[in-house]
Amino acid sequence: MAPTADTPERRAFYDKIDKRNLMALWLSLADLVTPEPRSACRPASWRFDEIRAYMLEAGSLITAKEAERRVLVLENPGLRGQSKITTDLYAGVQLVMPGEVAPAHRHTQSALRFILEGEGAYTAVIGERTIMHEGDFIITPPWAWHDHGNPGSKPVFWLDGLDIPVIQMLDASFAEHLDVDEQPITRPVGDSDARYGHNLLPVDHKGGGGTSPVFNYRYARTREQLERLRRAAAWDPCHGLKMRYTNPITGNHAMATMATFIQLLPKGFSTAAYRSTDATVFVPIEGKGRSVISSRTGEDIVVDWSRRDIFVVPSWHRVRHEAIGGDAVIFSYSDRPIQEALHLFREDRGNA
Amino acid sequence: MAPTADTPERRAFYDKIDKRNLMALWLSLADLVTPEPRSACRPASWRFDEIRAYMLEAGSLITAKEAERRVLVLENPGLRGQSKITTDLYAGVQLVMPGEVAPAHRHTQSALRFILEGEGAYTAVIGERTIMHEGDFIITPPWAWHDHGNPGSKPVFWLDGLDIPVIQMLDASFAEHLDVDEQPITRPVGDSDARYGHNLLPVDHKGGGGTSPVFNYRYARTREQLERLRRAAAWDPCHGLKMRYTNPITGNHAMATMATFIQLLPKGFSTAAYRSTDATVFVPIEGKGRSVISSRTGEDIVVDWSRRDIFVVPSWHRVRHEAIGGDAVIFSYSDRPIQEALHLFREDRGNA
Amino acid sequence: MAPTADTPERRAFYDKIDKRNLMALWLSLADLVTPEPRSACRPASWRFDEIRAYMLEAGSLITAKEAERRVLVLENPGLRGQSKITTDLYAGVQLVMPGEVAPAHRHTQSALRFILEGEGAYTAVIGERTIMHEGDFIITPPWAWHDHGNPGSKPVFWLDGLDIPVIQMLDASFAEHLDVDEQPITRPVGDSDARYGHNLLPVDHKGGGGTSPVFNYRYARTREQLERLRRAAAWDPCHGLKMRYTNPITGNHAMATMATFIQLLPKGFSTAAYRSTDATVFVPIEGKGRSVISSRTGEDIVVDWSRRDIFVVPSWHRVRHEAIGGDAVIFSYSDRPIQEALHLFREDRGNA
Amino acid sequence: MAPTADTPERRAFYDKIDKRNLMALWLSLADLVTPEPRSACRPASWRFDEIRAYMLEAGSLITAKEAERRVLVLENPGLRGQSKITTDLYAGVQLVMPGEVAPAHRHTQSALRFILEGEGAYTAVIGERTIMHEGDFIITPPWAWHDHGNPGSKPVFWLDGLDIPVIQMLDASFAEHLDVDEQPITRPVGDSDARYGHNLLPVDHKGGGGTSPVFNYRYARTREQLERLRRAAAWDPCHGLKMRYTNPITGNHAMATMATFIQLLPKGFSTAAYRSTDATVFVPIEGKGRSVISSRTGEDIVVDWSRRDIFVVPSWHRVRHEAIGGDAVIFSYSDRPIQEALHLFREDRGNA
Repeated sequence: MAPTADTPERRAFYDKIDKRNLMALWLSLADLVTPEPRSACRPASWRFDEIRAYMLEAGSLITAKEAERRVLVLENPGLRGQSKITTDLYAGVQLVMPGEVAPAHRHTQSALRFILEGEGAYTAVIGERTIMHEGDFIITPPWAWHDHGNPGSKPVFWLDGLDIPVIQMLDASFAEHLDVDEQPITRPVGDSDARYGHNLLPVDHKGGGGTSPVFNYRYARTREQLERLRRAAAWDPCHGLKMRYTNPITGNHAMATMATFIQLLPKGFSTAAYRSTDATVFVPIEGKGRSVISSRTGEDIVVDWSRRDIFVVPSWHRVRHEAIGGDAVIFSYSDRPIQEALHLFREDRGNA
Repeated sequence: MAPTADTPERRAFYDKIDKRNLMALWLSLADLVTPEPRSACRPASWRFDEIRAYMLEAGSLITAKEAERRVLVLENPGLRGQSKITTDLYAGVQLVMPGEVAPAHRHTQSALRFILEGEGAYTAVIGERTIMHEGDFIITPPWAWHDHGNPGSKPVFWLDGLDIPVIQMLDASFAEHLDVDEQPITRPVGDSDARYGHNLLPVDHKGGGGTSPVFNYRYARTREQLERLRRAAAWDPCHGLKMRYTNPITGNHAMATMATFIQLLPKGFSTAAYRSTDATVFVPIEGKGRSVISSRTGEDIVVDWSRRDIFVVPSWHRVRHEAIGGDAVIFSYSDRPIQEALHLFREDRGNA
Repeated sequence: MAPTADTPERRAFYDKIDKRNLMALWLSLADLVTPEPRSACRPASWRFDEIRAYMLEAGSLITAKEAERRVLVLENPGLRGQSKITTDLYAGVQLVMPGEVAPAHRHTQSALRFILEGEGAYTAVIGERTIMHEGDFIITPPWAWHDHGNPGSKPVFWLDGLDIPVIQMLDASFAEHLDVDEQPITRPVGDSDARYGHNLLPVDHKGGGGTSPVFNYRYARTREQLERLRRAAAWDPCHGLKMRYTNPITGNHAMATMATFIQLLPKGFSTAAYRSTDATVFVPIEGKGRSVISSRTGEDIVVDWSRRDIFVVPSWHRVRHEAIGGDAVIFSYSDRPIQEALHLFREDRGNA
Repeated sequence: MAPTADTPERRAFYDKIDKRNLMALWLSLADLVTPEPRSACRPASWRFDEIRAYMLEAGSLITAKEAERRVLVLENPGLRGQSKITTDLYAGVQLVMPGEVAPAHRHTQSALRFILEGEGAYTAVIGERTIMHEGDFIITPPWAWHDHGNPGSKPVFWLDGLDIPVIQMLDASFAEHLDVDEQPITRPVGDSDARYGHNLLPVDHKGGGGTSPVFNYRYARTREQLERLRRAAAWDPCHGLKMRYTNPITGNHAMATMATFIQLLPKGFSTAAYRSTDATVFVPIEGKGRSVISSRTGEDIVVDWSRRDIFVVPSWHRVRHEAIGGDAVIFSYSDRPIQEALHLFREDRGNA
């Protein structure tokens, strides 16, 4: 689309209507309706070692209680100042020191926790505590009371993924604090898993919301499944062996706004180029590797990663992954459920 | 509704129209549209010991291959000659002797297998074998090739539940034989479980049919869940601790035409009276107990059962169960998915 | 499948187990699980003129009130004594004489009314009356109070289609009588249509059951749509121009157990052979024609029909229709929603 | 939440991590996760007379062809420079002069057109033209070719509602131009309405996407429904008589990203205060009235409107409407389908 010509008459008109909260579409149409995705979101990566050091420093600067949540936000370099890692998702790394509690609150934002380092902390959700282990994927459903605690002797770190920018855009944020730090515990550890996690449901269970009632997808079990599927050789050229976490009540994604995935890349496996409209945050939890992200202008951004590092691939950027030196396992999340619900998801398995 | 008066003119009219395939509704309306369910289906029970003895006798009279399936059909005493245990479901007990194969065929009827005695036989479904253990619930989806074999040294017995009368009524039976006894095996043991059984789905999995892709719900795992839920004390006065098997792709029942349930009655637990429109076949797999079924005319039928026995409670008959001497675990199946799909299911948790 | 050999030992065994409500499956398997649908249901037809004469005779033999419903049941000649027109559906023709009322009752059976002759009678459903016109398709949802009245001066005839045999098989019949003949009217004529019939829904309308809230699909409007589609030339070789009535809340069939269709065959149009697993009852409401039904044994049954006649095509029988002399419009109904819900529907558009 | 204390050490830390695209969450948490919706979106209104005059002036400054679309964007005064009327929706007024064509293109953004003034222009969607009349609600589905033309003798004005900001945030914009101004017409006028608009569907129609196949909801018909419902007195204290446009294949909203509503406020009717999380754009098409919007800080913004004016009520702002002098009919749209799909919609029918 060629830009429209600029003339003094037109400029005067633009000025005049501007005062009435009006604007000529033909000046912005090309930026609003683009031939391909074209946001400011950029490929980026963070090394866990670095984040870890900063967080321990933060640990000495502020308590979990004063901070409410002691988190460093990972801001996309193309979207600074907006607390976003992609155009519509948030990522942060949270630290809970031994003996600390992150006090109970609830909000309409959905949260996922992917445990990076440390064992034995817990999160409590709707009256049930779950114990955190490295690689566990834990859900905080929207409007669910939640608090985190670390009764152990070592710091615990995890990745927080939230849909904060989505709720901002929908202007639908609600939040409340509980008057005590820790919510009352009314159900035994593992209750949700026992009720909902094994292809059995209470006989009179009705319906299913947007969020899975299974709120801890334990890594030990997930890892075992990957190993079993490896024997079935269910490899995909673009993904290796990639599974999505599901809500067993609906078969849909585990959360209404964020898709979560786990994938195994065996030693030496190199994926074919792939792009999709759901910008994705990747977090390797085993192994080392390299990912090459092709920007729209054609240059390649190379990310050399090892476990616990975090990197982001923006919408419609081609990416190739390679496991180096041993098997790699990568957790990832994106806004795919929203794109699917709104019939907007596209992917492209071809090459550059 | 009072019966209409009988007159010679009316009788002559009935005779006349009968020749044209016409019938006066007022003569049969009261039998067709009844105030409450009123089929000929009756409470009934079978002792496994007795069935087992007959089956071994059958084992010497006919081979699995000649019989195609060596099965004794459990016929409801109120519905003799129709191969039905309830108005719309079939039950049989199948025996496969050591070294035998029940040859591959497929049909539009859905089948469930609940393993009663013996270990190590297998069923093959769509290129994958699964090994049978006591208490396992195994699915043969409609139109799926399936064959059964017993490479072990002891006879294996299981309960077959099928929707044969439903398919008869819908006049939708299709069946085929494979030209070899055993279908080709193309997937490793446990593949379905690895792909679909653990709240993970292949990233590009689409849709979900009427039947669960998990085709063996292993008893060891199910039993463990019951034990964990016992600790959560999720007791229901009418059911004890009762779970339904689900299709993880949809959250619905594991099969399109038959619901399957497992329930734990702890030692001494006595359920409150319950009735529902889905006539149900019960198969205790652990423990001993007594069930009291109240017929519509008010008399009580008492069934004293131990493991592997089979009994049936017709539609809208109140039933109470009691575990005697120890914990009891009962598998059951009914046509509830059909009743739910057609918006016909009713239940009544009150007392007589 | 070859029948199993008969031996004295086997016969003795069969007799012995028969006493314990057991039966050898290998004796009946071939009849239960057939290579193709094989019920006793037969092609059949009824001329309206004949039914009409019988019904007027019935009108002088019994009142609507004594009969509760003055209906002649159309019994399939292969299924006599069962009040069925197909294996699982019922058809009858109902007459309400001027001044009569068919008193209010309700039942779990679903009913459709297709108005054959007469104008100005009404049916009342859940507090709303709708006026009957020829060709209207009217629904009585399950468990909805309903009564019919004819305040006009001429007899009114309609076809009743019900799922009585389905509810029998599921053993789920419930019924009640109201203590007055006519239920209280609480909503204006046309209220359901105004609320639900025009791609608008009340802003807070929730959910949608198995039955359409639109309970009169007026023929005038349906006929106009067929005429508009004729201009779009949306012809199907097997069906002419065939539409299914839908529930606007779900897009599914208008009723949970019965599909309803309307089709236009323009003058001279001859359809290609078609068969499906849903045995179908056809009722031409305009025009004349001929349908040829190929039985499984290969002979052709020819039905020459004119408006208001009724004929039935059993499951998996090929049928071809031809409109003779002018345009024909045919209403039809079948159990297709059940077959679809249970994943059993099959069709075959090929030739004999 | 109290702000955290600021110290030199902390400030130095913030500066240091800023260089690594990290940010301390405790500085922004209170702005990201708010107790209630708190966007910059403000109540605002535009008078059609004023817009109309500006548009005619624009008509002399630029052709539809040069502009591609001659539209004035209504920018929310709290969100200037972003081409948004709410946080996630776009609104503009489009003018097509006699003889002009807005050339064919397609994009993943969904568009609604609500016709404000003029008769006889058309929009073509996927090979079918529909004629525009005042009050018609017309849909351009995502990725559907569309062009608009005005063969008449008077200018035609309509409101464009699009989900542009949603697609921006999801970074999922795709667009293409056709190489000719007008797409080929392959279906007669009214074809979609005939196929999908009247509770009938083509017999083999499968599935249903996010957008209604009915693409013109004619005002004449909608208005008639409102009049019929008026007789049924289906008044809601907060809404008068309010209906949502639906997709007849799913019963859901007519579009995947935008809800559309029509409501009748009879003369003198004054609604009770209502607020919801879906910021809403209102366009009266008949009558005059006044709406009072209560801002969060407690002051009332009063909008006196007459037909074709446009006003916007932000998320969680209470609004009361009053029809003055005669009946009023108001069209409106919001992002409610997204909020519902993501389980975020809330409403509050209570008073301030």
